[in-house]
Amino acid sequence: MDVTKSNFQTVLETLDDELENASFVSIDTEFTGLNSTEGRSNKLSSLDTPPERYKKVLNGSSQFVIIQFGLSIFRFDNSITKYVNKTYNFYIFPNTSTLPGLCDTKFLCQASSLGFLASQGFDFNKLIIEGIPYLNLVDEEKLRVILEKKRKSLHLHSDASSSELSEIPADQKGFLNNIISKVETFLQNEENEERSNAILELHCSTSHNELIFSHVKPRYPNLLFESSKKSNSGCTVIVKKTGIRNSKTEPSETDNYVVEMQKVEDNVGFSRVVRKITDSGKLVVGHNMLLDLCHILGQFCAPLPEDYDDFKGMVNTFFPRFIDTKVMATTKPFRDLLQNSVLERLLSSLLAAPFRTIEVIPATGFPSYTDSTTPKNHEAGYDAFITGRCFIAMANYLEDISASKSKTAAVHESQLVTPFYQKIFMMMVPDIPYMTISGPDLEPSREHVFHVTFPSEWKIQDIFHLFSVHGTVRVDWTGDTSAFVTLHRKENSHFVLSAMTESKLPVGCSVISYKAYLNRKSQNATLPSEVPDLSSRKRLSSPVECNVSDFPSPKKTRKDVKNVKLNKDQFVVSADWD
Amino acid sequence: MDVTKSNFQTVLETLDDELENASFVSIDTEFTGLNSTEGRSNKLSSLDTPPERYKKVLNGSSQFVIIQFGLSIFRFDNSITKYVNKTYNFYIFPNTSTLPGLCDTKFLCQASSLGFLASQGFDFNKLIIEGIPYLNLVDEEKLRVILEKKRKSLHLHSDASSSELSEIPADQKGFLNNIISKVETFLQNEENEERSNAILELHCSTSHNELIFSHVKPRYPNLLFESSKKSNSGCTVIVKKTGIRNSKTEPSETDNYVVEMQKVEDNVGFSRVVRKITDSGKLVVGHNMLLDLCHILGQFCAPLPEDYDDFKGMVNTFFPRFIDTKVMATTKPFRDLLQNSVLERLLSSLLAAPFRTIEVIPATGFPSYTDSTTPKNHEAGYDAFITGRCFIAMANYLEDISASKSKTAAVHESQLVTPFYQKIFMMMVPDIPYMTISGPDLEPSREHVFHVTFPSEWKIQDIFHLFSVHGTVRVDWTGDTSAFVTLHRKENSHFVLSAMTESKLPVGCSVISYKAYLNRKSQNATLPSEVPDLSSRKRLSSPVECNVSDFPSPKKTRKDVKNVKLNKDQFVVSADWD
Repeated sequence: MDVTKSNFQTVLETLDDELENASFVSIDTEFTGLNSTEGRSNKLSSLDTPPERYKKVLNGSSQFVIIQFGLSIFRFDNSITKYVNKTYNFYIFPNTSTLPGLCDTKFLCQASSLGFLASQGFDFNKLIIEGIPYLNLVDEEKLRVILEKKRKSLHLHSDASSSELSEIPADQKGFLNNIISKVETFLQNEENEERSNAILELHCSTSHNELIFSHVKPRYPNLLFESSKKSNSGCTVIVKKTGIRNSKTEPSETDNYVVEMQKVEDNVGFSRVVRKITDSGKLVVGHNMLLDLCHILGQFCAPLPEDYDDFKGMVNTFFPRFIDTKVMATTKPFRDLLQNSVLERLLSSLLAAPFRTIEVIPATGFPSYTDSTTPKNHEAGYDAFITGRCFIAMANYLEDISASKSKTAAVHESQLVTPFYQKIFMMMVPDIPYMTISGPDLEPSREHVFHVTFPSEWKIQDIFHLFSVHGTVRVDWTGDTSAFVTLHRKENSHFVLSAMTESKLPVGCSVISYKAYLNRKSQNATLPSEVPDLSSRKRLSSPVECNVSDFPSPKKTRKDVKNVKLNKDQFVVSADWD
Repeated sequence: MDVTKSNFQTVLETLDDELENASFVSIDTEFTGLNSTEGRSNKLSSLDTPPERYKKVLNGSSQFVIIQFGLSIFRFDNSITKYVNKTYNFYIFPNTSTLPGLCDTKFLCQASSLGFLASQGFDFNKLIIEGIPYLNLVDEEKLRVILEKKRKSLHLHSDASSSELSEIPADQKGFLNNIISKVETFLQNEENEERSNAILELHCSTSHNELIFSHVKPRYPNLLFESSKKSNSGCTVIVKKTGIRNSKTEPSETDNYVVEMQKVEDNVGFSRVVRKITDSGKLVVGHNMLLDLCHILGQFCAPLPEDYDDFKGMVNTFFPRFIDTKVMATTKPFRDLLQNSVLERLLSSLLAAPFRTIEVIPATGFPSYTDSTTPKNHEAGYDAFITGRCFIAMANYLEDISASKSKTAAVHESQLVTPFYQKIFMMMVPDIPYMTISGPDLEPSREHVFHVTFPSEWKIQDIFHLFSVHGTVRVDWTGDTSAFVTLHRKENSHFVLSAMTESKLPVGCSVISYKAYLNRKSQNATLPSEVPDLSSRKRLSSPVECNVSDFPSPKKTRKDVKNVKLNKDQFVVSADWD
């Protein structure tokens, strides 16, 4: 079901109950772009550590925005022992209206991403005209504070305005005449009509602010006067045209306040859906979730933190129980059974033997995605739905092969899926295939990896030559004068450093172990100019805790979120990749 | 007439003749946003100098892109003594296809701007799917060089590829087996299918590059091998999947080269239109042109220069003869006759007395914008058309009131409009209402303006107090501890500095003349960390020349552009504004 501004309120009203009754939900998002920089610094590397990868996503992707959010709600119906599904496809677009304190969002687009979505039938006109707005908790709070201040200021001036056109005190005539002349100029100035939201800003002291409201405002019933407190340099009174309004039938300032507070509610918009998902405590399933989670958190919850540990805390706060089906699909036993973990292909594989038929019934009033002759790939709702189906198929399979006698029909409750909780798939890193959000990340041995620095005139053959006695190597550039060198034959790792002492190396060349590289980077990270990403590895000896208090509280959670016990050794991924 | 990818080639073919026969053209553009920063630094000020204003536009707007370009061609038909019009409305969107060397454009959008355009009926789906791509001269050159290098490299390898599957030299076995294993891994690696344009990069020396093409490429007929030269660190061979292709019927590499060079032509796309306008040497008319000109130059010609003088040179190169109707409308005699210079309102005023009826006939096959019951305001084509009508109306009026006996019917040729050539309207700056692109800018007396610095705890009332003996003042903040102070009574200007010597001022406070402020800023500008905008004023004593040689040459101009004599004293704008 497509959800836009026109039916959002209706959907929102039923969502609490839907989530209350849900067994689990699956999600997917579509963005305006994937990566904003093409330089080496944000390029993914197969040696990325989790903090490095997070930093690259943060730097390279956070200016793009989510424009579609798929929410697929699965409820296990015991009477028919099948899952019943309701899928919502939300169109999401930043606020385009003007409300004091509401920012006019600027976001980045990647031409190829928009082109791809358009080729898949994405309706951008619907998006911009009918998209649901959103505010994260921080921006919502800011807006409320501004409107509250405004209300107080209006209240303050409501008495003063009764002394309409009262005589100007002699000692203030100069100041007030100057203000009145500015307002007159503003009214007459044709330039201000170039854009309908033209404003005049009057900077003044607190006492002058009072004078403006008592002696200038009453003269201009068709102008809106707003006062905003300013630190150090006094107040600013903002004057706006309101269009031709009859001052007799104009709503009272209290009415305006109510209307504006309702506007805040309207503008929180889609963020409510995310808060409801958090509050429900239900299992959230996604596929290849890193970008989804980063964008969902940053756009609808609070600005993303710089620090990777803080990011873990934030994920645990807003998504206390999630599973990434790409982690499942690339982990034993599935990695040996599935050729491909790309979503559509994954579904195809899971629809055949040895996997059980996935029976999901669309709820009444909801169209069936499975009946559709044209699959809606890359529509967020559709992708969320098939992610849920993939999850059910893989969970079914785990039940099927388990030695346990009591098989679980409602597989979202299966103990066999718990090892996959709180893990986010990391593309392209064979020895750290996922981020572990609930505890310390994997730290595979990288004893066969070395960090090499060399003169700028060196070419790759010089590096090959340097390592030639240790067999073939793989080179990953980290800059124009440095690279990671990975030995193909791990057994040669122990000979490298002793063979490459400073005296034996060419001038301007150094070779250090991967561990020494990390230590050096970690030390540099304490300098302010350096990125403190790797240092966080040191602090990961104990599981990351959820610092709910770090974020503005959305609402009391409806249920206590169960603390899930993780067994990270189960279905462990092989660190062999070469 | 809407122009998209589907009819662009047809329109382009007729455009040379259309422009050849044109009397003048008018243009308008629509952008994805107006200003990207909300801080004080890019906020427009009524005291902005032209270089400061340019800098603000450069910093605040250059990440947005033009998505619609209106080109309205007016031809004076002597037989009917009327203008005949052809208006084109081009949809423009960055390239979304993949071609080596072609960048995947990222651009900024402002939510309110997209919302506004959507509310006016702008079709974003048409834009993204059917928009015409573009390349500026610099990017076009880059792409040509890359493809030329590729062709040479392919030519080099065409002999080698005949020795298919030749035996690997013994001393290179290690290297080549490593490469082959990487290619095999790439082929099998499911991750690479996550996006259809997955690539494998092989970094190597020039000699190894040869080996890859002679010994590895022939083994994989379904993979595309491309070599890109890399400075210092050797070559990179890029390997891509091509989909299942029959290698027998696969086009030859020479065919590929021709196809790719055609792709370059296709991607230069809309930029050709701008080059044709430049080459035509015809008068270009726009309305409030600063943003239009900046975006047109940056997007379709070459990256915008940092320096304001260089910008003037660039404008003169690509638009050697232009008129901004907003400069006309806000200058005597029109400023006294017109209430409003906003485009639609301007047209309304110009349709009534004392202005002559503007008769413009739509050319055969072109719809008439004047007949339309619903005006298409803010469609670039429509706005370009009405800009042209406004120009004709104002030029007619100048003829009507002139003392000359020989009235000109084809008013674009009137000597009376030449004073308006090469001037760009500057919003909100009453004493410098336009940038003078063909020569030195206006330098009005700002003797009644002072630059004041003060302690951070100061409020506006402290500044009012400081100047109280000199009458009322206007304060324009330039930072938390500095502001411009403008005296209302200019006659008091001479007393200020003598009254405010250091000994008489409060601690931490200084007052300098506007001139001294400019000098100080100009001196600071020579330091590398400062913005060198104001210093350029010093060098503007002689008219700016068109440095055509600074830009990649588009094509020989078809006609010699006449050197227009400017008479800047005619219709001079009053510098009085208070």
